[in-house]
This record gives sequence, C-alpha cells and structure tokens, in this order.
Amino acid sequence: MGEKPPAMQELQYMTWEQVAAAVERDAGIALAVTSTEQHGPHLPLGTDAFIGHQLVLSAAEGLDLVVAPTLAYGYRSRPLSGGGQRFPGTTSLRATTFISVVADIINEFVRHGFRKIALVAHHMENQHLMYEAAYEVVGPTPSGGPRVMVIESPYPPEFSPETQQAVYPDGAPPIAPPAIGLDHASVLETSLMLHLRPDLVHADRMIDDWPERVPGYDLLPIPDGFTVASGVLSGAKGATAEKGEMAWREIVGHTREMLKAEFFSA
Amino acid sequence: MGEKPPAMQELQYMTWEQVAAAVERDAGIALAVTSTEQHGPHLPLGTDAFIGHQLVLSAAEGLDLVVAPTLAYGYRSRPLSGGGQRFPGTTSLRATTFISVVADIINEFVRHGFRKIALVAHHMENQHLMYEAAYEVVGPTPSGGPRVMVIESPYPPEFSPETQQAVYPDGAPPIAPPAIGLDHASVLETSLMLHLRPDLVHADRMIDDWPERVPGYDLLPIPDGFTVASGVLSGAKGATAEKGEMAWREIVGHTREMLKAEFFSA
Amino acid sequence: MGEKPPAMQELQYMTWEQVAAAVERDAGIALAVTSTEQHGPHLPLGTDAFIGHQLVLSAAEGLDLVVAPTLAYGYRSRPLSGGGQRFPGTTSLRATTFISVVADIINEFVRHGFRKIALVAHHMENQHLMYEAAYEVVGPTPSGGPRVMVIESPYPPEFSPETQQAVYPDGAPPIAPPAIGLDHASVLETSLMLHLRPDLVHADRMIDDWPERVPGYDLLPIPDGFTVASGVLSGAKGATAEKGEMAWREIVGHTREMLKAEFFSA
Amino acid sequence: MGEKPPAMQELQYMTWEQVAAAVERDAGIALAVTSTEQHGPHLPLGTDAFIGHQLVLSAAEGLDLVVAPTLAYGYRSRPLSGGGQRFPGTTSLRATTFISVVADIINEFVRHGFRKIALVAHHMENQHLMYEAAYEVVGPTPSGGPRVMVIESPYPPEFSPETQQAVYPDGAPPIAPPAIGLDHASVLETSLMLHLRPDLVHADRMIDDWPERVPGYDLLPIPDGFTVASGVLSGAKGATAEKGEMAWREIVGHTREMLKAEFFSA
Amino acid sequence: MGEKPPAMQELQYMTWEQVAAAVERDAGIALAVTSTEQHGPHLPLGTDAFIGHQLVLSAAEGLDLVVAPTLAYGYRSRPLSGGGQRFPGTTSLRATTFISVVADIINEFVRHGFRKIALVAHHMENQHLMYEAAYEVVGPTPSGGPRVMVIESPYPPEFSPETQQAVYPDGAPPIAPPAIGLDHASVLETSLMLHLRPDLVHADRMIDDWPERVPGYDLLPIPDGFTVASGVLSGAKGATAEKGEMAWREIVGHTREMLKAEFFSA
Amino acid sequence: MGEKPPAMQELQYMTWEQVAAAVERDAGIALAVTSTEQHGPHLPLGTDAFIGHQLVLSAAEGLDLVVAPTLAYGYRSRPLSGGGQRFPGTTSLRATTFISVVADIINEFVRHGFRKIALVAHHMENQHLMYEAAYEVVGPTPSGGPRVMVIESPYPPEFSPETQQAVYPDGAPPIAPPAIGLDHASVLETSLMLHLRPDLVHADRMIDDWPERVPGYDLLPIPDGFTVASGVLSGAKGATAEKGEMAWREIVGHTREMLKAEFFSA
Repeated sequence: MGEKPPAMQELQYMTWEQVAAAVERDAGIALAVTSTEQHGPHLPLGTDAFIGHQLVLSAAEGLDLVVAPTLAYGYRSRPLSGGGQRFPGTTSLRATTFISVVADIINEFVRHGFRKIALVAHHMENQHLMYEAAYEVVGPTPSGGPRVMVIESPYPPEFSPETQQAVYPDGAPPIAPPAIGLDHASVLETSLMLHLRPDLVHADRMIDDWPERVPGYDLLPIPDGFTVASGVLSGAKGATAEKGEMAWREIVGHTREMLKAEFFSA
Repeated sequence: MGEKPPAMQELQYMTWEQVAAAVERDAGIALAVTSTEQHGPHLPLGTDAFIGHQLVLSAAEGLDLVVAPTLAYGYRSRPLSGGGQRFPGTTSLRATTFISVVADIINEFVRHGFRKIALVAHHMENQHLMYEAAYEVVGPTPSGGPRVMVIESPYPPEFSPETQQAVYPDGAPPIAPPAIGLDHASVLETSLMLHLRPDLVHADRMIDDWPERVPGYDLLPIPDGFTVASGVLSGAKGATAEKGEMAWREIVGHTREMLKAEFFSA
Repeated sequence: MGEKPPAMQELQYMTWEQVAAAVERDAGIALAVTSTEQHGPHLPLGTDAFIGHQLVLSAAEGLDLVVAPTLAYGYRSRPLSGGGQRFPGTTSLRATTFISVVADIINEFVRHGFRKIALVAHHMENQHLMYEAAYEVVGPTPSGGPRVMVIESPYPPEFSPETQQAVYPDGAPPIAPPAIGLDHASVLETSLMLHLRPDLVHADRMIDDWPERVPGYDLLPIPDGFTVASGVLSGAKGATAEKGEMAWREIVGHTREMLKAEFFSA
Repeated sequence: MGEKPPAMQELQYMTWEQVAAAVERDAGIALAVTSTEQHGPHLPLGTDAFIGHQLVLSAAEGLDLVVAPTLAYGYRSRPLSGGGQRFPGTTSLRATTFISVVADIINEFVRHGFRKIALVAHHMENQHLMYEAAYEVVGPTPSGGPRVMVIESPYPPEFSPETQQAVYPDGAPPIAPPAIGLDHASVLETSLMLHLRPDLVHADRMIDDWPERVPGYDLLPIPDGFTVASGVLSGAKGATAEKGEMAWREIVGHTREMLKAEFFSA
Repeated sequence: MGEKPPAMQELQYMTWEQVAAAVERDAGIALAVTSTEQHGPHLPLGTDAFIGHQLVLSAAEGLDLVVAPTLAYGYRSRPLSGGGQRFPGTTSLRATTFISVVADIINEFVRHGFRKIALVAHHMENQHLMYEAAYEVVGPTPSGGPRVMVIESPYPPEFSPETQQAVYPDGAPPIAPPAIGLDHASVLETSLMLHLRPDLVHADRMIDDWPERVPGYDLLPIPDGFTVASGVLSGAKGATAEKGEMAWREIVGHTREMLKAEFFSA
Repeated sequence: MGEKPPAMQELQYMTWEQVAAAVERDAGIALAVTSTEQHGPHLPLGTDAFIGHQLVLSAAEGLDLVVAPTLAYGYRSRPLSGGGQRFPGTTSLRATTFISVVADIINEFVRHGFRKIALVAHHMENQHLMYEAAYEVVGPTPSGGPRVMVIESPYPPEFSPETQQAVYPDGAPPIAPPAIGLDHASVLETSLMLHLRPDLVHADRMIDDWPERVPGYDLLPIPDGFTVASGVLSGAKGATAEKGEMAWREIVGHTREMLKAEFFSA
C-alpha cells in the first residue's frame, strides 16, 4: 500500500474501506467546528480553523479517533468575543444553517456506523448551536445508540501557574458578560499561532488594543466604536512561540483527557 | 378612563391606541425571554419567567418602556446550567423555533413603529439565539433604523462586596466551562424567589446538591449521573428573602443602567 | 410544604417533582393558544390571552389537568375577524413559527410522559395551524400513544336562549365568509372582560362600530377602509358584567364537557 | 396563428409572448387552490380540483384574467370538513409546504409583472394558509405594488331562496364548529359534479351518511368513528344536475362579482 | 357504475374506494414532475406538463399504475436548458419548496399503502431535487418498505437510427455543459407537440434561434444576451407531427420498459 | 512582514485588512464546492476536495481572485455518478442544508464588498443546488450589484485529441442518463490524483470495475447491486501521473478562461 500519508487519521486522507475498518473496530470520529473570522491585523482569518484542526489532530494522537474535515465556517462573530460582523473577511453562517450542517454531518457519521462522535469548537460563538445539532440527532434520553460529546471550550479551566504567569504576567484580560474573556486575537491566540504557524503571523503588526466600550450587552446594528477598530480585543504584544508552546501542551492535554475519559477509558 | 390598571406599562394591559401613543413619543419596548425549566424540588418551573418578567418591569420603572408579554418558553435546558432536558416539566423550544419566535416579535415591534427594542434574558441557554433573532431582523450595519439591545446576562458582573458576602459567604459556586456558574436553583435564585414570590418556594425542600460530575463538556444523550438528580446545581440552603432583596436591588439597578445608557441618555 | 399557591394546577407554579407525580397518575395537560391583538379602544391587547388562560383554568377545575403557560403570541390577525395586521400593538407570529412553537411544546409534553394533551384557542386565526402542530407530532393514525385534543372554538355552538337574548337582543352580528362572526371586541368579548377583568376595560370608550366593507374575501396589502378604524367589528355598547357572567358560565361548561368527554369519562 | 385553442385564457395554453402582452395591458391572474381529497364512494378525488378550476375559468369569462394551472394538492383534509387524513387517495401537503408553494407562485406572478392576483380556494382547509402566502409576499401595508385578493370561500353567503329550497328542501346540514358546514361530498357538491362532470359521478353510489360524532373539537390521531366511514359528511341523495346548475350559476356569479369589484371596476 | 371515464387510471378520476382497491392489489403510482416554462413563441407554457402527463399515462397503459395529478410547477428554469427566469410566464418553485412538495406527495402515497412509486420528470432542472425528495422519505438503505423510482430523463439514451435521422438530419444540437442538450423548444419538442397537441402549436411562429453565448457556466443575475431572446434554444423549423410520432413511440416505450423492469417483472 | 506564506491568495491566510484591500481594488473571490465521497479502494475520500481546491488555486494564478476555504461537504452522492449514499465515509449534506451554506457564504462575500463571485464545483451532484444558492442571493434580474458565476462543470467540453487519446485510448466511458459520464474514481480522476497528490493514491489497488446495472433511472432505497461494490464506476487501471498532468493543464486552462472571460477581460 506504499508509504503512509501524513496524518492517516484524517477522513479526507482515508479510503472508504479504511473507514469501514475503523467503524468495525469501534473507532471514534471527531469534527472541529471553527470559523473564518478576523483576528486583528497580525493573525490570519483562518486562525480558529488552523488551531481547531490541529488541536483535534494532536489530541487524537494515540487514540483511535478519525478526524473529519474541519468546518471552517462557523456561527456569526460577535463584537465582544470576536469583533463582530462588520469586518470584511469574517465569513459566517446563520444559526439555522450552522445547526443543519453540523446535524447533517453527525447523521452521516451515524450512518457510517460510528458510535463515538466528538465535536470540538475553537470559536466561542458556536456554543449552544453545536449542542443543538447533536441534540437534534440523538436526543436527550439514552437508548444504547451512538453518543455525541460536545466540547464547546477545549481550553483547561485554568492553566498551570507557570503558564498562567508566562502568558498573563499582568493578569488575564477581563471577562465580558456573559462570561467571555476578551481574549480574541490577543496574547494567547497570538502565542499559539507563533508556535503552530509562525509563517502566518505578521509579527510587526502585533499591537495592543482594546474595545472602546465593554458593556454588558450587545447592540444591533453594531454601532461604530462598539466593534474594536483593529479587531484585537486585548493586548497581543508580548506573545511568543514559547508561551504558545506552553499553553498548547496544556490545551492538547486537556482535550485528550476529556476524549479519553468518555470514549477510551477501560 | 377609570382607575389605572396594575402595571399599565405592560403591552397586554394597553389598548392599541395607547401603543400608538407610545410609539408616537418614541417609547421603547422590552421583551423578557425566559424559560419553563426545572428549578429543583423547592422552586417552581416558572422561576425564570417570574424573575425575568419582574426584572423587566422593575428596571423599566420610570423609563418610557413598554413591556411585552414575557416569552415563557426558552431554548433547551442544558445539564450543567439548568439540569438538562431529562426532567419532566422542563418545556423548551428547538433553537430554530426560538429564533423564529423572537425574530417575529421583533419584526412586529418594528411594524408598530418602535425604534428602541430591548431583549432581556433570564435563562443562560437563550444566549446567541436571541442575538441571532435580532441580527436576522436588523442586521449588523447601522442604517438609521430601529436598534435592538440584547441583554443576555442582566446580572451585574460583580455584586457589591456586602451582597457578595451575604449570598456567598463561602465563595461563589465554581464555574463550569464554558464559563457558566453552577448557580441554578441555588442560593441566589432561591433568595430572589423568597424575596419576590415567597408563596411559590417550598422552604422545607431547600437542599444542597451538586452534580456528580462537572466535566468540561456535554454528552448527548444525557447519561445518568450527568444530570444532577435533584435539579439543584449547587447549595440552596442558607437562602433568605433578605439576601434576595439585596441582590435584587443590584440586578434591577444594573439592568436599568444598561437600558438608560443606550436608550434614555440625554 | 406550607400554603398552596394560587392555582397549583398551573405548570409554572409546580415543581418538576409535582409534574412527575401528575404524569405518574395520568393527568392531562392543556395549553391555551391565544394572541396579543387589538381589541378596540376599550379592551386591552391581552384580551384573548386573559380570557383564554382563565377559560382553561376554569374548565380544568376539578379535572386532573395541568395548565401550561398560555401562548400569548398567536397567528396573524385578519381584518374581518380581528382587525388585521395594520394596528400597532397587535403582535403576531408567522404561520410557520406558530406551528413550530405549538409542535415543540406538544413534543415536550410527550417527553414528560403526558398522554392527554389539549389545545384550546381563544383566537380564531389560530385555526388549522394549531391542528397542524398536533398532526406533525402525533400523525393521523392511532397507535396507542398520546392523544391531542384540538379545540379551535371553545364557545358552545349556541348559547342558551336566555343568554342569547341577553347578549344579542337584536340578533347576533352577521357572519362574514368564510363563516366567522364579526364578534371581535364587541358586546360578547366586552361583557366577558367586564366579568373577568373589569379593571382592564375602558368603559367610557365602549363604542359601536362596523367595518366599512364586509366583503367575502381579503385583500393584501390591506387597503384603507378595509380594516375598521376603531378595531371594533360590531357594537360593544350594551356590554355588562352580568351578560359576561351568563356567557362565561356556558363557555366554561362547554369546554369542560369537551375535555371530560374525551379525557375524563369513565 | 390558426385556430384559438380551447380556453386561451389559461396560462398553460399561452406562449410567453402572450403573457407579456397580458402583463402589458394590466390583465390579472388567478390561481385555484384546491385538493386531492376523498369525496365519498360516488365522487372522484379530483372533485375540488375540477370544480375549483372550472369556477375560476367561468368567473373569469369576459374579464381580462389569466388562469394559472390549478394547484391540485391542498392542505390536509380534516375529519369534520373533508373526512380527514385516514382515507387512501387523499393526498395533501404539510402547512409549511402549502404556504411555500402558493407564496412562490405569487412571487413569480409578481416577477412577470402582474399587479392583480387572485387566489380562489375550493377546499375549506386551505383557509389562513393561502392568506399567509399572500401576506408573506406583499405584506399588510399598501405601497403601490401588486395586490392579492384572497377568496377562501367562493360560495355566496346565501343562495337565492329558490336554489336554497331546491338544494336543501329539509334545511342545510348542520354547522360543525368552528362554523364549517358538513357539506362535504353531499347534495351540493354532488349536484355540482352532476352538472359539470356527470361522467365522473357514480350515481348508483350516491348515499346518505353522517359522522357518528360531530363534536366541537378534533382529535389526533383520528380515532375510529371520528372519520365518517363512507366519506360522505351529510346526505348525497337527491342530488341532480339541475340543482347543480342552479347553484353553479350563483357561485360563478358571486365569484365574478368579487373579482370585478376589486380588479375590474371603472 | 356507468361508463368508464376517460383515463380511469388517473387518481383524480378515481374514488377513494378505487384507490383502496388499487393498494390492495399492490398497484404502483406515478407522478409526473414538470414545469410551467416558456417554450418559445410557438409552444405553450404547459409544454412540459402536457408531454410529461401524457407520457406517464401512455407508459402506464397496460400496467397496474395509478397516475397522480401532474405537478405543473417545477424547479427554476435555467438559461442554457430552458431559457431561464427572466421570461414572463415561466412560473417556478424555489428548490426547497419543490423538494417539500414532492416529498409530501410521496409521503402521502406511502400512507395510502403504495409500495411502488415512480417519479417521472419532463423538465431537466428537476434533476437531483426530485431525487432528494425521494431520499428524504425512504432513505438509502433497503428495509423492505416502499420503493421509489426516480426517472429524471425519460428519453432513451439514443433514438433509433431512423428517428435520429428524421429528427436531426443535420445532427443533434450541441451539448452545453454540464452535458445538457440545447434541445429546448426546438425540433424535437415541437414535433412532439405537433403530434400530441397540434391545437396548441403556433406553426407560423416555429423559428430557428440560438443563444448568443453557450458558455460552460451560468451567471446570476442573468445578463442580457445570455438568455436567448426568443426562448428557442436551437432550431424549431422542420418539426412535423410525423417526426413527433416516431420519437414519441420510442420515448413511451423506453419509459414503459424502465417501469416494467423494476416494478412489473415476474 | 517576513516571508510570503504559501498561497497568500487564500482567504484563510489573509488578514482582514488584506481582504479590505482586495475589495478596495475590486478583486474577485472564488469558492470550490466539493465533497467528502468514496472514490474506490485506491483514492481518498477527499479526492474532490483536493482537486477542487487546487483547481481554483491554479486557475486563479495571475488573476486578482481570493480563494475562500473549500467546502468539503457537498450534496449527497448518487449511485450512478459517485457510488451513492451506502458507502461508509461518504459524508454529505441534505439539499436544503447545502443550499443554505452556499447562500450564506455568498451573502457574506457580498457584505465584504466583493462584486465578482465564482463558485466552482468538483462534484457533479452539487449541480442546480449551488445555482439555487446564487439565485437566492442575487436573483435573476440585473441591477448593477454583485455577479455570481456558477461553474458546475469545470472540465473542458472536450479534451485535446492528444489528451483524449492518452486518457481514453479505448474511448470514454459510456454516458449514464441523464448525461453523466461514469467517470468516477476511474482513469481520469486517478491520473489527476497521481499528478497532484501521488502520496494519497494506493497504486496497488487501482482496479477496473463497473456497476452491475446502468439503468436510466435511480432507485431508493438503493438496492444491492445498484451501487458498484468497489466504488469504481469504470476502469482505473492505466492511470498515470503523465496523463493526469496533460488533463490537468487543460482543466486549469479552461477554468481560467471562463473566469477571465467574465470577470477579468478588458
């Protein structure tokens, strides 16, 4: 069969017979649900997609888990968590469309015969909607059929003290209600990208910025000044590949632990 | 015209001519989007609806704001924020239905001529979906038309130190990812209900409980032990009407400030 | 457990454990589907909601029937039965939304375990649409599962001669095709409200009015003169609380008989 | 151009250039919305479609009104007005589908340039849903654009005394709530078919029948005995082509008058 | 029972008892899915509907196959296969509506008890969408339930050499990508109509025409010059009833063979 | 800014400011709509996605055209063009979902300010549905707004004689009605993959296969024997990277010519 392609665990790289074999041995399947969203002047629009896809690949290493093609179109960006829908480039789906896409894909996994299905978000706004998709397919009441794990936040609740200190020497960015950290395109994501895809980071454009207002609500249409002009929701300065690597290791570890706990424990 | 009915600011109590007059003077209109959801063995299923409706009424006092009939059916309850969809009594809408209802109502407010529209949630799971409804109606880009304010979390980011100390003498309940406090049917909501609707609280059934597991993800179908059996997500013991009043005053004040800042500032 | 709250048969006032007990003993559940609709210069927009909700509560007295939160948003008002969608204040749902809401709620009742489900309209325009919602959930062919009763018209086909004479001394208002009486916001509804909620009736504004045209068809957009300007589709003068009480007793009795015949006969 | 085809006013028989010319001279366009529904053992499933299509053709005679292909699939049959959805042969659409079909067709008429659009039902269950379709396209508020006339009941409110006496010598069939006459597949429709399509009437199977129960509500699933077994909702005996002709003339006249009053008056 | 109506195999002409009998003996049912679409200056808008309906009737002759009312509203016309949506008269459905209509009808056939269901298109644009409708109802995996045959192209892959020579003495019209012959309203369809419905052909307007451009793609909005002005996508001159009859016999035969092979072979 | 990333024309690699600049200079944007579909035992499930994405990138070279993230989930595979929906691994969307996704993405491109939008399929089943999405957004009638180019078949109508001879020395595979070549996972696609992604081709499993039946219709559910067991719809043997390169050059050239003709001609 020749040489193993790079990352044979990816659905796109497998033949249907390899999928049939994976189903046969009760492998799981995971889907990253991400976004195409502005990430400031220094990070690419695919930041969520690159991180989310790599996260699922890395967390799946050593687990019998097929990785489906990452969904690079997510739910609409919101001003206080992603800059909002006034940026060119941010390309989002309506809520109803997003739910349908994820539900259709889960339904296909079920048709294939998979019984362990994981959804992993790297885009806060996908919250509830990816859950809804899973709910529409498998419902609330156990019946012995396939199970869907919904990971809306793959980050550990807390980083280790060393990582926390390295990434946020002056403390984490404040929490905007309802409880979303203003951590978009800032030091953490920038560090992760410097670790994972340094070729895509415009290091000379890593700025510190801040929304003019961080009120406890949203307004539609989005008024000027509500969306931070640069797209950076808190400081990106100080990001380094080293900090990224420290955080990455913990994020991957946390995600892998969640997958293992539910799907791959003895 | 006889005696003023109780709460003439409510749309249901007004005649169409009174609404026409309100529109004429550029009044606003507010809608509470809540739930019918289990709240443990001691609180009624209408807890969110009662609190949400009263919150909008109280916050609107003194503001020129009509209060529409509260939406008592919300988006699906989730295990780690409301106990989830395995409880009898919890009566929820699909995401697509919920979005449509809220969007239709906003569209009608726009047809009436209202230009200041506020949505206020008292049910965490309505997040994003109520935003989506507003987005579908008015879009992201300002054009001089009506504005919709989306308040997904009407609670202040922090209570005053006195209130904080009174309500949570041992510290707030932990945060379940993605960042939702396990505060459902617990001391805070119970205190609020003891203040607002003591007739509906079964004081003899105010228990402390806790989910067996608070993992960083969800599972569907919802396995046994994932949903806390009692429906109480953290301790309800120690709740009092006095604590409820303290918190209530701050919640109402915070919500009123948000409404004023955007719609009723000079 | 302390004092019984007012109307413990209401879902909103019950705990989930009380619902579980109701399901256990095979209680039924009823939902009033009403409207927020103009009712002339003298009646509030919540007229249908108040009457519909109270009707279900009263008809359910003595029956083992839980009463769900009334749906106060109904299908669009039509000119010849409710004044139509050009009045400010009238707040309606699209047909598709209305069907989805009612279907979702029925589905939740089924999930709770209820097997006797009643829908009761107090808004003519909900006709067919509430039926459709029930059809979508349980289908046409009996299979031993839950049953849904669809009461689109809770009024008796004929009032008793005494009531008929009292309410309509000069005869009932004419029937507009397709067979809907022009009885909106007129003597009957006004009398009912004077009986049930006199605090909400502007007695000094009870006028007689009449549509300019009562053609056998509708026109969209709604031309001027097609919608009666006042919102009163026939005379409201002569309404009294006494007439309201006479009619109310018969309406409640008729509705209770229907519920009993199907769900609570031996 | 050769001989004029039979019924050149029908859209299906016209070329696009003839339609362009009709639009140019501000002709109207009419659509019959009917059903494929059981009509007892003696009438064909196309009864509504044949009558509805012919009615629009006859009413349009002499008016500048194009007749679109009749929609032969209508909203679901209901037990007390059409026998309900347990009969084989009855072929109906979901409410949402029906609304979409009618709305799409109206939208196309608008694209063609028509400004006078008429919908004519011959199937009671299409009520509200065909109205909704028109509403979705043109909305409630006049703006100088195309107008849609919605004729849900093309029959005159009352027949002339002679016709009334001829068709119903013993009085009309009773009215089932909400106000729909039990006139399905009975003497009136049978007489109309004997007049219009005698080749399709099984005269030897014209029976009298009656639902076992005519309650003021519906039940789903439809219990046995709720749907009349024969499909005849009141007596069909006594039907004659002569009675049919008398009624037909008045029905056509009434429908034509409605069309003229709104679209073709000076 | 009197004289047999013309074409008793049509659902519209049958009573529900005749349908019940057909189901009982395991008859099939067929639905033509066609269009109302411009066919040049010489053919009527109903060309697809007339041919499609007659094709199903003729192919069904001698087979135990009920013919449902033809769906005369199809999916949107496209410029390079039907002239596109800029012609007045062309009356099409959205894709979602079309799928819903066909799915609803199939669902009803299933409810009747039919187990052999055939869909026959005479409108290229219905491709995939009619397939989707069948898929939504019966799914991909055999389970012993009803089967749906989807005939998107009822024409034989090749006509006999004699017919080919007669119809296309100079060769068939070119194929526009993706592989659709430019055969709309041209010699073949015109000949078929001269054979089947000569009363509806404007023989004096049978012209030869050709799109200005036949690119390998579509453009929206449809630019001028992209849609052929006359609506004839290739030559109509030379059409005769004799050629139509030759082709018709082969088309009917081919369709009947397909139906027999799957549903009526021993 | 450091080194230019590999393929800066991809939306995912750009910052929002780079997109804003592209819009400013009136660049176009292209989206490949592909599939995750079985391609026999020797080609990966991502075959359409890899080829489609690379095709758009290559065709866009030298044109001012941004390339959006490829849609790797397409409409359902059909037995006679892609093997159909009984293969594990094939992961498809419902028609309605697919239309919504593509329409949402186009709408976002329009919001960004793009005026030249191209959709390029590499999956035959996406036909009509991607057209519908574009139609829903921009409609049929030119109005000076953005234009959408819909390339459902990016292959040239005919290859050059040399390529034709090299790829199909024994002639092209037969055409299955309605006019789709049985060219799935066969010599052409295999050669293309050997040229583009040889690391993903299992050369030892390149077999010749053929559907048992190639009827002129489809059947649902898909019977055994209707779907070719291997997933190869015609011979894959004889595929070489050299043949792939010959065909690729012509496919890229043809697609580029189409894009240039419409969007980038002087």
